Amino acid sequence: MSDSSQSPSSAGKSGFTVIFQPSGRRGLVAPDLDLLSVARGFGVEIESACGGKGVCKKCRVRIESDRDCVSPPTEAEMKAFNAEALAAGMRLACQTRVVGDVRVFVPEESRRVGQVVRKEAGKRTVPLDPAVRSHHTTLVAPTLHDATADADRLLAALEEQHGLKDLEFDFEVLQAFPGIARKAQWDLAVIVWHGRKIVDVRPATDPGRVLGLAVDVGTTTIAAYLTDLEDGEVLVTESAMNPQVAFGDDVIARLHHAMHDPEGPAVLQRTVISEINNLARKAAEHTGTRLEDILDVVMVGNTAMHHLFLGLDARALGSAPFAPAIQRAVDTTASALGLEFHRGCRIHVLPVEAGFVGADNVAVMITEEPYEQDEVLLLIDIGTNGELVLGDRRRMLSAACATGPALEGAHLEFGMRAAPGAIERIRIEPETLDVRFKIIGLEGWHTDYPADQVGARGICGSGIVEAAAEMMMAGVIMSNGNFNQELRHDRIVLENGRPRKFVIAWAEETAVGHDITVSLKDIRAIQLAKGALRAGAEILLRRYGVRSPDRVILAGAFGTYIDKGHALAIGMLPDCPLERVTSVGNAAGDGARFALLSVNKREEAARAASKVEYVELATDPDFQTEYVKGMQFGPISDGS
Amino acid sequence: MSDSSQSPSSAGKSGFTVIFQPSGRRGLVAPDLDLLSVARGFGVEIESACGGKGVCKKCRVRIESDRDCVSPPTEAEMKAFNAEALAAGMRLACQTRVVGDVRVFVPEESRRVGQVVRKEAGKRTVPLDPAVRSHHTTLVAPTLHDATADADRLLAALEEQHGLKDLEFDFEVLQAFPGIARKAQWDLAVIVWHGRKIVDVRPATDPGRVLGLAVDVGTTTIAAYLTDLEDGEVLVTESAMNPQVAFGDDVIARLHHAMHDPEGPAVLQRTVISEINNLARKAAEHTGTRLEDILDVVMVGNTAMHHLFLGLDARALGSAPFAPAIQRAVDTTASALGLEFHRGCRIHVLPVEAGFVGADNVAVMITEEPYEQDEVLLLIDIGTNGELVLGDRRRMLSAACATGPALEGAHLEFGMRAAPGAIERIRIEPETLDVRFKIIGLEGWHTDYPADQVGARGICGSGIVEAAAEMMMAGVIMSNGNFNQELRHDRIVLENGRPRKFVIAWAEETAVGHDITVSLKDIRAIQLAKGALRAGAEILLRRYGVRSPDRVILAGAFGTYIDKGHALAIGMLPDCPLERVTSVGNAAGDGARFALLSVNKREEAARAASKVEYVELATDPDFQTEYVKGMQFGPISDGS
Repeated sequence: MSDSSQSPSSAGKSGFTVIFQPSGRRGLVAPDLDLLSVARGFGVEIESACGGKGVCKKCRVRIESDRDCVSPPTEAEMKAFNAEALAAGMRLACQTRVVGDVRVFVPEESRRVGQVVRKEAGKRTVPLDPAVRSHHTTLVAPTLHDATADADRLLAALEEQHGLKDLEFDFEVLQAFPGIARKAQWDLAVIVWHGRKIVDVRPATDPGRVLGLAVDVGTTTIAAYLTDLEDGEVLVTESAMNPQVAFGDDVIARLHHAMHDPEGPAVLQRTVISEINNLARKAAEHTGTRLEDILDVVMVGNTAMHHLFLGLDARALGSAPFAPAIQRAVDTTASALGLEFHRGCRIHVLPVEAGFVGADNVAVMITEEPYEQDEVLLLIDIGTNGELVLGDRRRMLSAACATGPALEGAHLEFGMRAAPGAIERIRIEPETLDVRFKIIGLEGWHTDYPADQVGARGICGSGIVEAAAEMMMAGVIMSNGNFNQELRHDRIVLENGRPRKFVIAWAEETAVGHDITVSLKDIRAIQLAKGALRAGAEILLRRYGVRSPDRVILAGAFGTYIDKGHALAIGMLPDCPLERVTSVGNAAGDGARFALLSVNKREEAARAASKVEYVELATDPDFQTEYVKGMQFGPISDGS
Repeated sequence: MSDSSQSPSSAGKSGFTVIFQPSGRRGLVAPDLDLLSVARGFGVEIESACGGKGVCKKCRVRIESDRDCVSPPTEAEMKAFNAEALAAGMRLACQTRVVGDVRVFVPEESRRVGQVVRKEAGKRTVPLDPAVRSHHTTLVAPTLHDATADADRLLAALEEQHGLKDLEFDFEVLQAFPGIARKAQWDLAVIVWHGRKIVDVRPATDPGRVLGLAVDVGTTTIAAYLTDLEDGEVLVTESAMNPQVAFGDDVIARLHHAMHDPEGPAVLQRTVISEINNLARKAAEHTGTRLEDILDVVMVGNTAMHHLFLGLDARALGSAPFAPAIQRAVDTTASALGLEFHRGCRIHVLPVEAGFVGADNVAVMITEEPYEQDEVLLLIDIGTNGELVLGDRRRMLSAACATGPALEGAHLEFGMRAAPGAIERIRIEPETLDVRFKIIGLEGWHTDYPADQVGARGICGSGIVEAAAEMMMAGVIMSNGNFNQELRHDRIVLENGRPRKFVIAWAEETAVGHDITVSLKDIRAIQLAKGALRAGAEILLRRYGVRSPDRVILAGAFGTYIDKGHALAIGMLPDCPLERVTSVGNAAGDGARFALLSVNKREEAARAASKVEYVELATDPDFQTEYVKGMQFGPISDGS
């Protein structure tokens, strides 16, 4: 009759039009949906940390249209806003349901900006030798003279045609096999896991694809690499924040949640699994592939992420002696974890080394292969925790340093994750204390733009290291981390007449409306973090019996984006010529991909994990001394 | 205030009182329940074959109270009854819903009488060597100096203390293990399947029991043996009719249902699994044990039962060349089939031999061990199908005979299963043609009772064989199965002036109100059944190269209750001295128990199944001749 049903404004009973400002995104929605869900559906990012419970109060929006187009304020909203704000139309998106056509304004502070995830598939390669392979197999149809059973016939053919012996069936495959075999006229693509299990049988004329997913679950970021197991190519890399962040920024907070809330472990597991399902779905969409073609998964992560991901009882991990549930590699089915891939999809989780040295570190080892080197390597993987491996083909030592979240930009006054608006590069002119900085999402130095177009939002991990190094080199702070009490400058903020903060960005250069500063407290957090890292490295060097490593390899996002000169300048790394320090990007993700592509690499991982000697820093008699020394800025005098 | 809520007659709005006559069982029921469900809830057995669809019309009842206490007649009932019957209150219980207090009369013909199941645990024994065992294992708690992971610690202890290597965890056990180990203070009972998988870990101080269930799924009857795997004792035997009977009496009808109804396989599987869950629940109740202590299951059954039980695609089994989905043994988890036992309970299904020689026959073989004998054995297992094995340690042949259901009393004019009221023994006086018979549920011969207390309901399988043999020996029928046309007698019923039926029980001696007779048609059914069996045996004897077996072993309920003399008299068995014919009861069930108690027996079963040579009778050139010869009553002249 008319096309009215397609016109949002005249939707009538079939739905309501919702428009988001300032993005202008709009669409037709079913009545009674909450605005947070609507926003997600339209791709409008609104902050939310409590999962829509009205608790975190981050999803503040303003209703610009008539108030009776939405449900009345809830109790949670009465608490969240004062009368004035409510009168101005302020609401929590998660609490507000659509009952008419609505126009919504999303304020700057509620807009979620996608974190810049720098986990891209590395360039290293590995010989292709995957655990899951497709075998073209042809059977002879049964007759009255040879009515051997279908399954026995297939097993004999697999042995004869591919030398595969003693295979077992996934039970669901066995159940369906007679029908599949006849439909395919006995010409089959047989998918076998590890030369042991038949996980699928398909018609040879329509064999589908054999895909795998390598997953690196970091405390903050999850990266997933969708990979073709038949040619080894990474089809696409997807990443997202680890949604467990809602339960705490660091490993300790999450273990605490798992230990003290009876539902905690299940919720934490479901959260991360659901995000991995999302990433896989996106990956499939972006590549025109199907989730059912994902037949193998490799997961790596630190020990806590590993336990929470697998749903292992992690209570013992939260207190001394920090014994993990399991160290060796875990093989199970993806479906046992709630991953919605192929029904027979397997998952291999790399071994962990000890309580705080995880499968992610083992993954780094199989990419850098210290056990194949004559040079003594120091591998440093800084995520939310710092993990170290020192050694060569003779011997390998590992340790975990409680660096805390400061190096990721968290728990600092203006710290933030590496997301658009984050200050990541800083230069301070020693003479004038003029500051130049670079912002993620903005080309070049900020001084190339008018102040009101800079829009800084905070300082990320690499930015804070540069800030500390530059402040030290400009004489703003001393080698013990204290502010130079003599110095006075516009950028030096006094408290009780004493220097306490240094202004990096002026209010007008920000999107937050305040000066962005580095405080004494922030400097102390950096000192503690880098002190722990340096002390760990020094203890490993001493245990191994060398003064310094031949090479330093920085892994992880932080290791990639940190300026090596600045890191050396503040004494974060042991003594080593600058040109012997290299960044290798997300080596843990690369290791996961390698293990996905190569059974051999899985075996290598098992050997490496059992060969490396874990050093418990907390019980080392020198730790305290080294820690105090490591907190110093500038090169440390080897004063033993 | 008052106890009125407990008094059925004053239930008011909370429910209605239903009374069943003549049993007098009564109770309070929710409004709108159908009478068939109500009857089941009260333990009142009412016949029903269609599952409550109003199709089979077996659940006829009469409403004795006011008609408006029940829902009005449905269309199905309008078809099932004429106006007179409806006026008299006749209804189908499955169609009639309770809307007031009701009194219901259940007529004799609608009462379901529990089948007498004669599957008792045999007396044979086997050395105890079960697949699932409990291992007492003690660990040292982790410390900061040795924080080896829990799982790795356990695996090391199992190797050291029990020599168990390369074990894997059931994933759920691994997930929970750290908590269990600490709660048990590292003193553990570790339940291991097949020396390969850890299926449970329990505190050594409260180790629970380790039970197994052997299940023999016959076409008609299911028997389940709850067994203690630590001492080999059968705790209890439970049995019930195979509820798949509602979908057809024989294997062909069920395969047909599975092939032609898309939901068929799932429904058939669910039906049998649900009955096994019921039997296990009863067994647990009767022995004060817990379903969660059942850790291993062995199932046997003919090839069709095997496929339907496992949910295997059984379509190919329904037509030539009758290739099974799988011949070798199947190992999977009980939960994959919907069996509600211990979460990690395994199931082992014995191998099948060929399309119609199943795992039940393999089970018979491992109890009688023909492969260990110097004498040539003929094993005959007659259920709804006849399965034969002939051989000794040198060679074994097997075959399946389409005996049809006649030998189980089905598809005969007055045939019935072996249930109370069934005539199972018959003697005919040759001079007078006087008849004596014995009835299941009545001590001694019927002639010991006044006629109106006899209450015969039909003739079961062993009864029909005796009837045929006695009629032959009394000269009522000739060796070709025809009635003696010369003979006239009260008991010989003429049709068109020619003898066609013989009266076994007079109407007044029955509970059904008619004479119970054996007709020419019944005799023909027996001839076809025993002819198929005899022909199969003769062909196996010829293939093996012997005239007759050294011994004949009759297995199965029919084999147990048949009179061997009568069976030999009608030429059902090959020539063999009477004293060399033995009955061994439910050898298939015994075989299932053996395989449950002994891994060695499972291996023996695998060897036996692959050693035995299956003979396809349908393609044997002599089959037709042998079949015709075998249909003769009396000893067969060896006229080759």
